[in-house]
Amino acid sequence: MNAKDVVYVNGIICPRAEARVSVEDRGFVFGDGVYEVIRIIEGRPFAARFHNDRLKRSLEGIRISLQGGDSPERFVEIGRDLLKRNGLLQGEATMYMQVTRGAATRVHNFPPPEVSPTVYISVARFHPYRDLASSGAIAITLPDQRWGRCDLKTLNLLPNVLASQIAKEKGAFEAMLIRDGVVTEGTKTNFFGVVDGALRTHPCDNHILPGITRSVLRDLAREVNIELDETPIRVEEIPRLSELFLTGTTTDVMPVVTLDGQPVGKGKPGELTRKLQKVLAESLASGD
Amino acid sequence: MNAKDVVYVNGIICPRAEARVSVEDRGFVFGDGVYEVIRIIEGRPFAARFHNDRLKRSLEGIRISLQGGDSPERFVEIGRDLLKRNGLLQGEATMYMQVTRGAATRVHNFPPPEVSPTVYISVARFHPYRDLASSGAIAITLPDQRWGRCDLKTLNLLPNVLASQIAKEKGAFEAMLIRDGVVTEGTKTNFFGVVDGALRTHPCDNHILPGITRSVLRDLAREVNIELDETPIRVEEIPRLSELFLTGTTTDVMPVVTLDGQPVGKGKPGELTRKLQKVLAESLASGD
Repeated sequence: MNAKDVVYVNGIICPRAEARVSVEDRGFVFGDGVYEVIRIIEGRPFAARFHNDRLKRSLEGIRISLQGGDSPERFVEIGRDLLKRNGLLQGEATMYMQVTRGAATRVHNFPPPEVSPTVYISVARFHPYRDLASSGAIAITLPDQRWGRCDLKTLNLLPNVLASQIAKEKGAFEAMLIRDGVVTEGTKTNFFGVVDGALRTHPCDNHILPGITRSVLRDLAREVNIELDETPIRVEEIPRLSELFLTGTTTDVMPVVTLDGQPVGKGKPGELTRKLQKVLAESLASGD
Repeated sequence: MNAKDVVYVNGIICPRAEARVSVEDRGFVFGDGVYEVIRIIEGRPFAARFHNDRLKRSLEGIRISLQGGDSPERFVEIGRDLLKRNGLLQGEATMYMQVTRGAATRVHNFPPPEVSPTVYISVARFHPYRDLASSGAIAITLPDQRWGRCDLKTLNLLPNVLASQIAKEKGAFEAMLIRDGVVTEGTKTNFFGVVDGALRTHPCDNHILPGITRSVLRDLAREVNIELDETPIRVEEIPRLSELFLTGTTTDVMPVVTLDGQPVGKGKPGELTRKLQKVLAESLASGD
């Protein structure tokens, strides 16, 4: 472990290996919290405003109120300090911010108002998946076992963990989740497909996370005259996919060339996918 | 805080207020773990064998392997030691046992095999809800927002937390959850109802936790010639409920006399409910 590897927990900056929370923290016993991961390029947080807005929305969604002047904007400032302390102002990195409902005697309902939320912030070196982004990735389909509020970025990630592990064991980069006969999203990404020439993805509702890269890409696509049709891809349309890719804060635009062992389209990254990879890469390079 | 209040974390017994886990514990960042709560009466764990079996099933369900001779049986022995140290061998108490997938660099898929699960065990004084069990409780109905594997007792409890809080704010003891038009269970209990003279509850499938008290009560009911019909109660049958009660490790048989502001049956605990309260109380008193 790097001696410089320090993190922030509840006002204290300390080595990651020494950073601790109470066993009574509601994050630990209930998964009662929310989080964000921000992409850092040469010290600059990409799309921080969108991540901050989503963190606010997640906090409101599970009814956690920040205290003592805390705010997502302040967390990003703390994260910038961590980047500096950890020598991560050059190159690529990620910034992780987590808020739980705090530590209190275990009862399901909320603790008394004097219990402060727990705030955990850390940063890490990040290496983009450049080779895979060029050759294309493998994906599998799995049933979407998640709860009814996938639009909130919470710590209740066990279904994502289990699906992600199955994908890994099958040699796949990601699992594409299927609920009620349609593709929702991946375990940590959004899925986009091209069916009959139209770029499609699941609309923003309670069954998908409103991805920041998803949203950025929709706007960038429009600028190059590609319209996104937010009609979910149905299972029976999967064999007709000519292109498939996924998006995420750490995956950018990742072509999927093999799905459940079958080639997608011509079995290599498609033209539209390449075009969107390019416009996103330009946007990332130019900053937010 | 009682000076005697000690808990167990990963081989160490220490004061609750000093008990900590890593911020990288997968319980804290993913809710990636399972748990049990056992009822303790005069130092005796009630139905420990059933809780141990369920803990094994939950561990297998999310694919956590215990290491170094750890087992649910050993956890109960550690819990007994905690009861002694905390002066809880007399009267009523609860024993809480939690296992997470351990602490490791945050990635969704499982950590390397050398990462050991985190084990947290604690005990606490418990006071049964005797007055409420006599007069009857208030409940409300809420949509069941939980994931597709409610049969596993995992730490992904945010939907339970949110529903439990709404119940509390509405002056209710519990929320009765509705999925696909049927009553599944409560946020921390199973629900039983009497419709047209028949005792009904949701069958054991992936939408409910196989409650230990639920199972004990089914067997006890049979001994007094009450057969349980495991056909779920449909929403449209709710107005026809003549009795309603919930069961759980810390709730025993709790009559529900008001549901969504309307009296259940005659608005007081029913005859069958009283009978089942009595047989369960006798079983608890005699030990497992």
